[in-house]
Amino acid sequence: MAQNAIKKVVLAYSGGLDTSVILRWLQEQYDCEVVTFTADIGQGEELAPARAKAEAAGVKEIYIDDLREEFVRDFVFPMFRANAIYEGEYLLGTSIARPLIAKRLVEIAIETGADAISHGATGKGNDQVRFELGAYALKPDIQIVAPWREWDLLSREKLLAYAEAHGIPVEMKREGTKSPYSMDANLLHISYEGYDLEDPWCEPGADMWRWSVAPEDAPDRPTYIELTFAQGDCVAIDGQSMSPAALLAELNRIGGANGIGRADIVENRYVGMKSRGCYETPGGTLLLKAHRAMESLTLDREAAHQKDALMPRYAELVYNGYWFSPERQMLQAAIDQTQAVVNGVVRLKLYKGNVLVVGRKSESDSLFDASIATFEEDAGAYDQGDATGFIRLNALRLRVAGNRRPYRRG
Amino acid sequence: MAQNAIKKVVLAYSGGLDTSVILRWLQEQYDCEVVTFTADIGQGEELAPARAKAEAAGVKEIYIDDLREEFVRDFVFPMFRANAIYEGEYLLGTSIARPLIAKRLVEIAIETGADAISHGATGKGNDQVRFELGAYALKPDIQIVAPWREWDLLSREKLLAYAEAHGIPVEMKREGTKSPYSMDANLLHISYEGYDLEDPWCEPGADMWRWSVAPEDAPDRPTYIELTFAQGDCVAIDGQSMSPAALLAELNRIGGANGIGRADIVENRYVGMKSRGCYETPGGTLLLKAHRAMESLTLDREAAHQKDALMPRYAELVYNGYWFSPERQMLQAAIDQTQAVVNGVVRLKLYKGNVLVVGRKSESDSLFDASIATFEEDAGAYDQGDATGFIRLNALRLRVAGNRRPYRRG
Amino acid sequence: MAQNAIKKVVLAYSGGLDTSVILRWLQEQYDCEVVTFTADIGQGEELAPARAKAEAAGVKEIYIDDLREEFVRDFVFPMFRANAIYEGEYLLGTSIARPLIAKRLVEIAIETGADAISHGATGKGNDQVRFELGAYALKPDIQIVAPWREWDLLSREKLLAYAEAHGIPVEMKREGTKSPYSMDANLLHISYEGYDLEDPWCEPGADMWRWSVAPEDAPDRPTYIELTFAQGDCVAIDGQSMSPAALLAELNRIGGANGIGRADIVENRYVGMKSRGCYETPGGTLLLKAHRAMESLTLDREAAHQKDALMPRYAELVYNGYWFSPERQMLQAAIDQTQAVVNGVVRLKLYKGNVLVVGRKSESDSLFDASIATFEEDAGAYDQGDATGFIRLNALRLRVAGNRRPYRRG
Amino acid sequence: MAQNAIKKVVLAYSGGLDTSVILRWLQEQYDCEVVTFTADIGQGEELAPARAKAEAAGVKEIYIDDLREEFVRDFVFPMFRANAIYEGEYLLGTSIARPLIAKRLVEIAIETGADAISHGATGKGNDQVRFELGAYALKPDIQIVAPWREWDLLSREKLLAYAEAHGIPVEMKREGTKSPYSMDANLLHISYEGYDLEDPWCEPGADMWRWSVAPEDAPDRPTYIELTFAQGDCVAIDGQSMSPAALLAELNRIGGANGIGRADIVENRYVGMKSRGCYETPGGTLLLKAHRAMESLTLDREAAHQKDALMPRYAELVYNGYWFSPERQMLQAAIDQTQAVVNGVVRLKLYKGNVLVVGRKSESDSLFDASIATFEEDAGAYDQGDATGFIRLNALRLRVAGNRRPYRRG
Repeated sequence: MAQNAIKKVVLAYSGGLDTSVILRWLQEQYDCEVVTFTADIGQGEELAPARAKAEAAGVKEIYIDDLREEFVRDFVFPMFRANAIYEGEYLLGTSIARPLIAKRLVEIAIETGADAISHGATGKGNDQVRFELGAYALKPDIQIVAPWREWDLLSREKLLAYAEAHGIPVEMKREGTKSPYSMDANLLHISYEGYDLEDPWCEPGADMWRWSVAPEDAPDRPTYIELTFAQGDCVAIDGQSMSPAALLAELNRIGGANGIGRADIVENRYVGMKSRGCYETPGGTLLLKAHRAMESLTLDREAAHQKDALMPRYAELVYNGYWFSPERQMLQAAIDQTQAVVNGVVRLKLYKGNVLVVGRKSESDSLFDASIATFEEDAGAYDQGDATGFIRLNALRLRVAGNRRPYRRG
Repeated sequence: MAQNAIKKVVLAYSGGLDTSVILRWLQEQYDCEVVTFTADIGQGEELAPARAKAEAAGVKEIYIDDLREEFVRDFVFPMFRANAIYEGEYLLGTSIARPLIAKRLVEIAIETGADAISHGATGKGNDQVRFELGAYALKPDIQIVAPWREWDLLSREKLLAYAEAHGIPVEMKREGTKSPYSMDANLLHISYEGYDLEDPWCEPGADMWRWSVAPEDAPDRPTYIELTFAQGDCVAIDGQSMSPAALLAELNRIGGANGIGRADIVENRYVGMKSRGCYETPGGTLLLKAHRAMESLTLDREAAHQKDALMPRYAELVYNGYWFSPERQMLQAAIDQTQAVVNGVVRLKLYKGNVLVVGRKSESDSLFDASIATFEEDAGAYDQGDATGFIRLNALRLRVAGNRRPYRRG
Repeated sequence: MAQNAIKKVVLAYSGGLDTSVILRWLQEQYDCEVVTFTADIGQGEELAPARAKAEAAGVKEIYIDDLREEFVRDFVFPMFRANAIYEGEYLLGTSIARPLIAKRLVEIAIETGADAISHGATGKGNDQVRFELGAYALKPDIQIVAPWREWDLLSREKLLAYAEAHGIPVEMKREGTKSPYSMDANLLHISYEGYDLEDPWCEPGADMWRWSVAPEDAPDRPTYIELTFAQGDCVAIDGQSMSPAALLAELNRIGGANGIGRADIVENRYVGMKSRGCYETPGGTLLLKAHRAMESLTLDREAAHQKDALMPRYAELVYNGYWFSPERQMLQAAIDQTQAVVNGVVRLKLYKGNVLVVGRKSESDSLFDASIATFEEDAGAYDQGDATGFIRLNALRLRVAGNRRPYRRG
Repeated sequence: MAQNAIKKVVLAYSGGLDTSVILRWLQEQYDCEVVTFTADIGQGEELAPARAKAEAAGVKEIYIDDLREEFVRDFVFPMFRANAIYEGEYLLGTSIARPLIAKRLVEIAIETGADAISHGATGKGNDQVRFELGAYALKPDIQIVAPWREWDLLSREKLLAYAEAHGIPVEMKREGTKSPYSMDANLLHISYEGYDLEDPWCEPGADMWRWSVAPEDAPDRPTYIELTFAQGDCVAIDGQSMSPAALLAELNRIGGANGIGRADIVENRYVGMKSRGCYETPGGTLLLKAHRAMESLTLDREAAHQKDALMPRYAELVYNGYWFSPERQMLQAAIDQTQAVVNGVVRLKLYKGNVLVVGRKSESDSLFDASIATFEEDAGAYDQGDATGFIRLNALRLRVAGNRRPYRRG
């Protein structure tokens, strides 16, 4: 598995400063042909400029793909079936997009006969791991060039100097929009890192957030929506069916308008450090809450508990970049097996950052049986006397132990 | 372990209609002496009337205990060290109070030479299980009388008729306050069940909630608070140290005033049915969020992940009534072992139902190292080249497998 | 779900004393028609007498089924894919047969229009739970009669007296074979309980064991066998393909002849008590060892570890009788998902009670790559330098923590 | 955390060819002083020659420590409380010794003012990880030199050439004893890797094994021993108390004489490859079996099951080198919390490779209650009628689901 000379490399290319420098650096450093790949995964940026820039840089094979439906259908939705949350707070918005990029990089490498791929993720982050584990899993002999781990352009100043020296146009886009944060966006979320967030005691300014209004600025009246689920996936809003990507975009719009989905967390990176990040995940926040509510009505107790027990591991696998791994597939099989019955409608009340479940129903699959649970007389649906034996046998081992040795405070 | 004749029974007694009827029914049915036990666990009701009523019913041994500090210190706080949430939503407010009641019932039985205990929990719910498993664990030879599983007074009408027939004064307290719901309260929460909640599609009316204002009615300006943690427990608000019970009461006040801590869920009872409940847990909601944030800064990644993996089981044990069990103690030992370093301060922003973490710091135990995580040059704190080997060895098994058999979509 | 009058009941009927008494008792007690069901699951007893006895007792609908292939194919094999062991020692020989019996009882009830089923399991054991949970899951409105929990014939003397009084022929079969133990057998194992085993310090006599020779009496020369696996199931012995039941029978013969598969354990019953049991599982012991070896060569590390993590829960579910449950199906889906690649051959050496794996190979699916693992030079298959980064990043969190607070002995 | 110039390095030194070459190579390559550290952890080799050789090589600070008691008491015994087995087969004999060596290397570095440590583990194995993770955890600023990852002496021929060129005496010890295998030994086990084991289909020759007789050559009569446990640790053999190291040595002697403890496995290394190893763990095999049997009598069911659920993770942590980690300490706290009651005696029958538990007793802590479990009448110790309610409530969720949707074969 040693590295060989690289003749052609597929670069994950946004057209921004970093990947423009990388494109040139690859041409220079490896004296190789570069294929650019630019994906629309809902990050909300125009892709057209990427083509023009790539052409200007002498790229002959340019891929620009709209992956939004595949992203939501094959990555976001399966993950939400698991109710995945990393470390109790993070909805994995960045993590879940990386394997899709890795997959396309590899597919394009095969199509174009490239022997390597390259990306602009730094050597300190999780994204390099996610890109590369994905690529290695799908094409074990692929070579990977990670410029940030190789070169010495380790600050913005050096990068700008390199761009200037090589005639790379710097549009100052980022500078123009004045954001001092490192950001990443796709249909599921937008994230912010760096700058004043590097002090975990510092509250970020109100102007950092881009996808949602502040709760304070959200409407003074609540919004109600009804989400329809079919086999664990959300398929309609207020009765209107939509494709996965359209649905998530609409949930982002609704959630964002109501100030929903902001998070400010310190997380543990796979590469060993703690980092602070802020996230906006408006649609995902609605989806998670509604999916759990749908499951609460339709899923068996022990299946639900088993899902909860597996979830942290599942989330860890997604976070760490093991989407294309036997262990993620194995857990997915378990999760998906439970979702056939997760059908119905959940009603949500949205108000200034709050998401409240106010109703859930399922004609086909509700396991809620009011005749059993009722506080009123139940006409024999449930024999209260059964509880005596239930308790006594569950207590038996505790009683035997208690006879042997009195309870010790733990 | 067969039942014998009962001579004296300790009754968990609130002074309300149900337990007043039970008191009389025990005297009649078992021809035995009844000891009453009434606890203040922060339910917010006067206890004095309970004494008068018990005396009027001929009770000679009357226990009225203020258990608030013990409740929070020995039950609520250990549980919050685990970040326990049942089924993704429920903060276990009722569950955690029951073992304490069981413990005092048993202690009083020993003090008074009683051979049995009794409680007013129905045969359909979890509370009977929690009371009885706790009591059996602590005193295996205790006898337990659960009138709701024995008698035929299975509706409010029959209960009222019995009360009237036996001269039991019915204060119509519940009726007076007009609540049609079955409620339970303690320092951690108040819960609502029954009535229109028995239809899981029905949104409860605004007048059901008692401990918190609606988010809509909360102040228009955010409230900021700083919570200090020592070894995993919250010990001060805005720098002011408080006893556990005082602190939780104050958090309830602050949270409730800001519309925080409402939940509306369908949950799976241990006795096998789904039920719908609404909860207000203002202080607990703040505690959980802040504790997680404190851990995010001070806890090692793998210890945190292991805690997350164990948490669903821990929550299940508390929910099901296994507080006084070897398995809960075992998990508690693991959890507590991690908390020595959970020290510092978390800053929260509260606004109309939202709890946002906006800062966290720990002079003694922060593992956040900005010099490693920074996007700027790090003066050698982290060698980006290390990531190459890290990724390549983590990918090795995936590459070997990929060589053997191309990835199969899962 | 209240009980109604029973008109027809399907009885799991062996023709022995216990179930013969039950048959009569059902006729008397419930004044109902009894359908008998006798299954061949490899217990090694003639079934013909059961028919004659049932006819003599006036039974009109008599079912005698050979379930051996279904038993091994649909129950034993799926369980062995999980490497299931209960409490580190027990191969679940009795547990796995019960759901099949429950399934057939329910099917026959549906076919014959019976409204109830009945079985001869006592109220102290696990088998009642396994029968009844299975039946309730498959036919929620089935009624169940468990005579041992209802009648007062709680000793052998009373049973014999009842038989004599009712003209039930007592063949003294058990007495004739002199076994004082309570035994259960099927194609997977034979078990022994009771009598001198009730003292867990007492070693059972050599004449208790029935299916295997003592290691001391096994051949002085080792036996070598090769087991072929296809998708996780054993399909051939020494290259000879066999049906599931034929294969397990042959493994029993080979294992038993070599003194393999005895176990003497104290186990925790689901109903809350500890009990002592001895087991002979000759073929199953070979299967488990070989299956693990086959997986060791073909299964990905993390999938294997995830299987190991889930196994205790899976085994507990089977032991407790939750075969027909959503949670067992969910885990099975995860397990089965991994088995597509578990193909190849394992070579075992059997010698006087020992099972030693001495070889494993898989042309299609081996992940063992000698060119990587070799102690000799590997021609670049593995870059030892990668380990430095791997270790350094894995150590990063430990180093940061170590800087903060020196290691504390745990 | 960048590397600095190394002035003094502590080398884990056996006196064999490899570490002798490393010693010289360190002196040459780093121009630094070398401190040698040689430990007796029961590997069964004389340590005196190591001193003479180190002196001859110009080493001034020579550490030779007898760590056997510390090894068994603080590492082996805690691990056996967990019943740790890696991947179903491996008793972790090598893994558990490495953190102790790492700990002493760091302690000696602190004592001698060294700024680095070094070891002779290769870049392909687990041991480098175990040494280095341990050292980094205990002293984050330690520098580590791993010659096998740095130099180009990657074959035995090159090593011998280097030795000859530098006048390093080659004793041909290994060669003299004719073993072509790579071996590692300590009080817990001896391991074999490489040579013909690199073909996983190849059965190793009878002369490979060193610590145990073949089962075929073991005595024709069984040996019975009784092991006494106190708080989960074995403290006496046949009633004779021994120190931890003496006890394990004696168990090795007894087990080895009876052909016990051989294993031949394919395992998954942490660095990503599968490797084949053979192991002899005679005493450990006895310990594990006996400890489980002691727990079966004294440990609560759910605590035991929780231990089983955590075990695979615990074993993985030990295997991967995370002994000195928060997560291992956390799990250890849970495990140790359960062991206070694991007291009593287990009786084993050893015969030609077999270990059979034939008795277990505990005067103080047995939870086995024959009066409950008995097949005879139990005088009211257990009410069989309780089982009805127990089963019916456990079945409730299955019945509700079954009513909603008939069972689907999974």
